[in-house]
Amino acid sequence: MFSILKQEDRQLAPSPALPLGTDHGEGLGRESSEKRDEEPADFYGLGDPAAKFSQISPYLSSRGSIIKCFRDAAEEGYKAYHLDEYDEDKNPNGISQKPLRGNVTILFLDCGNGLSRDSRGRNEKAWETKRVFGQLNQRDMQHIEPPMLQYPDWKGHRWLRDEVAGFLTYYCKAPVPLKPENVVVVNGCASLFSALATVLCNPGEAFLISSPYYGAITQHVYLYGNVRLVYAHLDSRVTEMDGRPFQLTVRKLEIALQGAKSEGINVRGLILINPHNPLGDIYSQEQLQEYLDFAKRHELHVIVDEIYMLSVFDESAMFQSVLSMDRLPDPQKTHVIWGTSKDFGISGVRFATLYTENQDIANAVASLGCLHGVCGTTQYQMAQLLRDRDWINQVYLSENHSRLRAAHAYVTEELETLGVPFLRTKAGFFVWIDLRKYLHTDTFEEEFSLWRRFLDHKVLLSCGKAFECKEPGWFRLVFSDKIHRLRLGMQRIREVLGKEPQVAKTPSPCQPLEKSIQSR
Amino acid sequence: MFSILKQEDRQLAPSPALPLGTDHGEGLGRESSEKRDEEPADFYGLGDPAAKFSQISPYLSSRGSIIKCFRDAAEEGYKAYHLDEYDEDKNPNGISQKPLRGNVTILFLDCGNGLSRDSRGRNEKAWETKRVFGQLNQRDMQHIEPPMLQYPDWKGHRWLRDEVAGFLTYYCKAPVPLKPENVVVVNGCASLFSALATVLCNPGEAFLISSPYYGAITQHVYLYGNVRLVYAHLDSRVTEMDGRPFQLTVRKLEIALQGAKSEGINVRGLILINPHNPLGDIYSQEQLQEYLDFAKRHELHVIVDEIYMLSVFDESAMFQSVLSMDRLPDPQKTHVIWGTSKDFGISGVRFATLYTENQDIANAVASLGCLHGVCGTTQYQMAQLLRDRDWINQVYLSENHSRLRAAHAYVTEELETLGVPFLRTKAGFFVWIDLRKYLHTDTFEEEFSLWRRFLDHKVLLSCGKAFECKEPGWFRLVFSDKIHRLRLGMQRIREVLGKEPQVAKTPSPCQPLEKSIQSR
Repeated sequence: MFSILKQEDRQLAPSPALPLGTDHGEGLGRESSEKRDEEPADFYGLGDPAAKFSQISPYLSSRGSIIKCFRDAAEEGYKAYHLDEYDEDKNPNGISQKPLRGNVTILFLDCGNGLSRDSRGRNEKAWETKRVFGQLNQRDMQHIEPPMLQYPDWKGHRWLRDEVAGFLTYYCKAPVPLKPENVVVVNGCASLFSALATVLCNPGEAFLISSPYYGAITQHVYLYGNVRLVYAHLDSRVTEMDGRPFQLTVRKLEIALQGAKSEGINVRGLILINPHNPLGDIYSQEQLQEYLDFAKRHELHVIVDEIYMLSVFDESAMFQSVLSMDRLPDPQKTHVIWGTSKDFGISGVRFATLYTENQDIANAVASLGCLHGVCGTTQYQMAQLLRDRDWINQVYLSENHSRLRAAHAYVTEELETLGVPFLRTKAGFFVWIDLRKYLHTDTFEEEFSLWRRFLDHKVLLSCGKAFECKEPGWFRLVFSDKIHRLRLGMQRIREVLGKEPQVAKTPSPCQPLEKSIQSR
Repeated sequence: MFSILKQEDRQLAPSPALPLGTDHGEGLGRESSEKRDEEPADFYGLGDPAAKFSQISPYLSSRGSIIKCFRDAAEEGYKAYHLDEYDEDKNPNGISQKPLRGNVTILFLDCGNGLSRDSRGRNEKAWETKRVFGQLNQRDMQHIEPPMLQYPDWKGHRWLRDEVAGFLTYYCKAPVPLKPENVVVVNGCASLFSALATVLCNPGEAFLISSPYYGAITQHVYLYGNVRLVYAHLDSRVTEMDGRPFQLTVRKLEIALQGAKSEGINVRGLILINPHNPLGDIYSQEQLQEYLDFAKRHELHVIVDEIYMLSVFDESAMFQSVLSMDRLPDPQKTHVIWGTSKDFGISGVRFATLYTENQDIANAVASLGCLHGVCGTTQYQMAQLLRDRDWINQVYLSENHSRLRAAHAYVTEELETLGVPFLRTKAGFFVWIDLRKYLHTDTFEEEFSLWRRFLDHKVLLSCGKAFECKEPGWFRLVFSDKIHRLRLGMQRIREVLGKEPQVAKTPSPCQPLEKSIQSR
């Protein structure tokens, strides 16, 4: 039981090889969980991706040495995992599993693609991938025309951008048809973050983001762009103003922005993730409006990452894309990104799209497009995939949502039985669980230690630190997997927690509300 | 007759919209062709990609504004061209052509892919593309397995890197088998230049390169990496030491390196292009050894771009990959790049590979690999393509070389008839032609003006300035096209030159030698 880290997600697990003193200690001064008072600094943090890396290569530039360390950290975790690979016959207690195709794996770390890796280093598929695989494998998807083999417009082939515009118009419920000239297609959302960071910010400038957040964004904006993230820290406290744990409010954004300004950091934009990874939050129309108004007030760009927009599995939930709004507060500074990696479970295809009305930005990103190009035949396949709305609606999404609902229901029932509080979500592939009572002290060292004990029991979770969560003790548990594999994973979690002494603590303001959220 | 600019190549044509004063005048002070004395400064230039762009967008960072301008410049040329698109029926005198598949186009600008673009903005294929298209379109190439749809190792799938290592071992004649762990696969050579620039240099540092060179490298190392190029200027002068026009010598490299140092520019590496674009040169083993020894002496990395390695069409030529050398002077600082865009004419597939023994560099580039990922199914197709050595040798390369030979022979005979001197080449898709006698004055304004007159006659050539050639009056003529289309292109060139008065000039030292080269 296990899961292997996807490349992109590997850095979400702390590397056992990283020195604790730097990775899990020193960098946390400002956002220490010890502080429980309401002082503004509590809500604010400034990322410094280079701080935890110090190994200099004689062959690389100083930035090159830092860039390399991002991979080293990921590789270390990867190697540690591979020391005890799961094999149904030879090593049934291992962390990995048998490389049978269709034999998916518990994704307690991975974002729902249900992938595993066989001994030859190949990934196995999740149900999403399997379904889409069948679709892509049809003969009419395999079409090649010579123009696909030649240089395209770096914005993407026009016929694909037509398809993307139609697709987004339909699924984002745009009030008027979206335009292909506002679409730029590249090889993944990582590339969009990189390109947007570079064309919107100068080196050392920053984007504002609420934490916890999908941690890979740190490197996507930093590796090439040298752009940092300013954190508006959310926490589990519930106050009169914050009716829900980890609630994003404009006040918190304001505090973080002012904090950054007071340190001389130039913040150029706000990143919103909706539906949210790892919290699973879906922003209401009112919330969205408030965040966008805040951004306009401060002349910030807004990058809205809607990569989970088709993974809203709860039928009572109302997801609202910013593209559905009748009037954006600042349309020239509002930029939406989406890709097929999560909603269609095909991260290996490397396909994502930017939608922006701002032609300066579309063209600047397209200028970087020669470095983020997508194979022409892949562009054709994606156009075919996005075009087939009957299949998407009636076959793919209905099945996928139904499975996500069932898996979510199973995992959350188990968590309730275990007495583990969690944020109930209606979208995404994960639940955000509260294991603070199992920490001896409220430190990230303790969190890492608990993460390690899970790994020793062949369960690989993502700990909160990987998402820059300011409170130690939160974990992300991915449930987008087959029930029998989830069962094994939950059984192992139960074993770990059964051995852990629960530490008596001041009841968190989160807890009662957490219950009420659960019982909704 | 014409050719549309490939995206990547668009900047190789001066944009009619760029102000002459900045694009073709001011920037050239140091390397003015007026200077004919032997002073060292004559051999040295420092690129400043931002100098010619001044348009600032209120929405973009200052670097973003420059990045956008690279696309604007390309787009301007593109639009100007589209005002008079060729159509066999409706506009037979236009610059473009009918979009029939298989109906290729004179590639006087494009690097040999024979592409054109129909009215819907789609490219048409060259003979190389057509052949490879047939190969890729076979059923067994269309195979999809679910692992291909999931995140790969960002170095590329292991089975592909195995194939690449075997392919390079065979075609580069490596003395010992090359290793898959030294291979990193990304979406195009542009991405490799970008990644290597970033991990080897800090912002503002530089690579040394001899000019003229494939001009797109300027933006590949600059857009993200903010790395500049230091030019070792080659020219047509023939001296005792330089037996051939545009000969690259270590002395010139030394002068340029010292020039850069004297200006406080930190040069981190040397870029070699072999076979050379646009000169068509193939370096001998002795030359290669000298350049590599020079780099080792100065502790420089060497990036060897061998993207035309399978396009050596003259059977008497001996191409030698650096990977064939028994002992590299500095193996840890020698990095080879190759891709399928030119040799297989499939630039739209976005596939290139780095080979380096240096694991720091391989891992640093792989760390950026999440931004340059290749679709898993494309990786599979490339593995299949590279594996089929019977087809490559007996079908593809023999046919391709034979066509290149015929086209080269036709074009060079025509040039001789026209009395246009040129460098005779044995590799690549182009000849480097000397039109200096048609310039009224030796300036780049005049060169641009002549380029414009060709365009007015529906011939789109690449002028020397696009390759940072220091001598005005040289052009690159691409010949990898069908004979009947080459015939039309040459006829139009004849018409233009027939109207041009030839300016009496001091005979260039190049000319007699040029003749002797031609008559070899």
